[in-house]
Amino acid sequence: VKTHAAFLELFNNRLNEYRAELEGRKPAGLYDSESYFLSLGGKRLRPVLALIACDLFGKDPRLALPSALAVELFHNFSLIHDDILDQAPLRRNQPTVHVKWNTSTAILSGDAILVKAFRALESHKPVEFRKLSTLLYRTAILVCEGQQLDMEFEQLKKVSVQDYIGMITGKTAVLLGCSLQMGAVSAAAGRSAQERLYEFGRLIGIAFQLSDDLLDAYADTTDFGKKKGGDILCNKKTFLMLKARELAKPAQLEELDRLMALGEDHEKEKLDGVLAIFDRLKVKDHCRKEADKRTRAAISCLGRLRAEPEKIENLKQLAYELLAREV
Amino acid sequence: VKTHAAFLELFNNRLNEYRAELEGRKPAGLYDSESYFLSLGGKRLRPVLALIACDLFGKDPRLALPSALAVELFHNFSLIHDDILDQAPLRRNQPTVHVKWNTSTAILSGDAILVKAFRALESHKPVEFRKLSTLLYRTAILVCEGQQLDMEFEQLKKVSVQDYIGMITGKTAVLLGCSLQMGAVSAAAGRSAQERLYEFGRLIGIAFQLSDDLLDAYADTTDFGKKKGGDILCNKKTFLMLKARELAKPAQLEELDRLMALGEDHEKEKLDGVLAIFDRLKVKDHCRKEADKRTRAAISCLGRLRAEPEKIENLKQLAYELLAREV
Repeated sequence: VKTHAAFLELFNNRLNEYRAELEGRKPAGLYDSESYFLSLGGKRLRPVLALIACDLFGKDPRLALPSALAVELFHNFSLIHDDILDQAPLRRNQPTVHVKWNTSTAILSGDAILVKAFRALESHKPVEFRKLSTLLYRTAILVCEGQQLDMEFEQLKKVSVQDYIGMITGKTAVLLGCSLQMGAVSAAAGRSAQERLYEFGRLIGIAFQLSDDLLDAYADTTDFGKKKGGDILCNKKTFLMLKARELAKPAQLEELDRLMALGEDHEKEKLDGVLAIFDRLKVKDHCRKEADKRTRAAISCLGRLRAEPEKIENLKQLAYELLAREV
Repeated sequence: VKTHAAFLELFNNRLNEYRAELEGRKPAGLYDSESYFLSLGGKRLRPVLALIACDLFGKDPRLALPSALAVELFHNFSLIHDDILDQAPLRRNQPTVHVKWNTSTAILSGDAILVKAFRALESHKPVEFRKLSTLLYRTAILVCEGQQLDMEFEQLKKVSVQDYIGMITGKTAVLLGCSLQMGAVSAAAGRSAQERLYEFGRLIGIAFQLSDDLLDAYADTTDFGKKKGGDILCNKKTFLMLKARELAKPAQLEELDRLMALGEDHEKEKLDGVLAIFDRLKVKDHCRKEADKRTRAAISCLGRLRAEPEKIENLKQLAYELLAREV
């Protein structure tokens, strides 16, 4: 049975080959920016999931290397464009593409990487190529929709908790499901096994995003240089905030509005005040409960999967590790 | 034998169906902007070429409708993103997407349309789907490269005429070739026929862009509200300008530099001065010659094509019409 590290190495070798092909290609702006962004690292979670899913059915995980590359390239495309949308200056503590080059290059570089994500599947025979491509297309549209919703929510006064979960499903969760399903397709697994893995990934993805919301508000240590309570300070509509507004009495809602209107010179008052309301309304528990519900549902998707029990156990463990970051 | 108008109607019906599916879809920003942009019109040249190419081999042109939709969507994606790059306020006299909505929506909307261009091919059976997809992917990368080169040229002091032709080949010409080849693939035409049509489209595309450069500087009537001499006034590195700088004697080069540095309050002096140098260096003739060379080579690609002579003649005529705009 392969370890997580073994899957990661398998993928990293493929990615290094891919990056070597970019070397010296023209126009420089397009390919240097791609190579730079890919060098910033990351957990490579999506490609590893594709390899794990393929391996689960007793097939050589290398069969899923095209899918692994495809989902990682797709993820990087979406980060480059997302960084423009968010006007983010840094990604993994390094300048983003639109800062290091310019917005135009970041747009074009992202576009080209999106196309290359699809091209990564070209080595597949037609029937498999079509299955994998259509799956990735469908997911790509959901991701664009999720990102658009995320933007539109910023402008809306009222967003329901349900809408929020729909948004993070598109923005984060479906690509995890897609990565696993593509691995299963590469292993020629049956339709229902494919779909269970997709669902497992989708549910874990939602749980993951919900625990990310928790981490941002409650984690003691800072993760990737993020500021503690950063979401609260920038009035982000996270699960916690939306649930709080849903449960708040009129006076609490008024207090939340007052706190959210506070400027940079009142950071401590804002953070402490919002967290106090969160505590009174127990939104942390609600969030944890929603995340746990998805995690349980995800695990149950694995129950009826015909694959080696030890490998299923490893996948479960990976999911728990993803979710078990200290809060 | 079908007329151009018949092919156009066939495509417009398909496009209207497609647009009807967008109606009321959420998130609104993503789909309203797509529908709006598609409603701005255009010659629909690329989809018509795909239908014509399919028809050329005696097959029902409707077989090429997925390809026609794919290339038109792809073209619209590239225009939306290009408008951001150029900071263009208007497209066909209407506000561009990044102006009517915002840059973020224009980026995401373009991304989604790019994916949907590829998705348009999903109705094809696997072998054909793979052929068409890989062709469109390859073309898409060339278009991104062409657009990046176009941007990089703006910053470069010296660009050769050859580099310029390479840039317009990517930015404009290859998609015309691709449209024709996709039509031929949809008709299950042989490999060499496909490749000749691609080459025909690519060469016509270069000739088309070169005559566009001529039109901008020399046309009496204004086309789509473009300003006469707009390229000259904004110091665009067109074929004419690059050729002029290549042929200019030191004193003429100095005069060109002086004219190009003139501001908006000296438009007449700038335009007249640059055109006078163009005249002395006969760059108009050079440009016409380069365009004609490509047109002849394009026409010769059709010579060895096994298809109905009358239909080949129609395609030739379309090419001449495209190129014969008065200068």
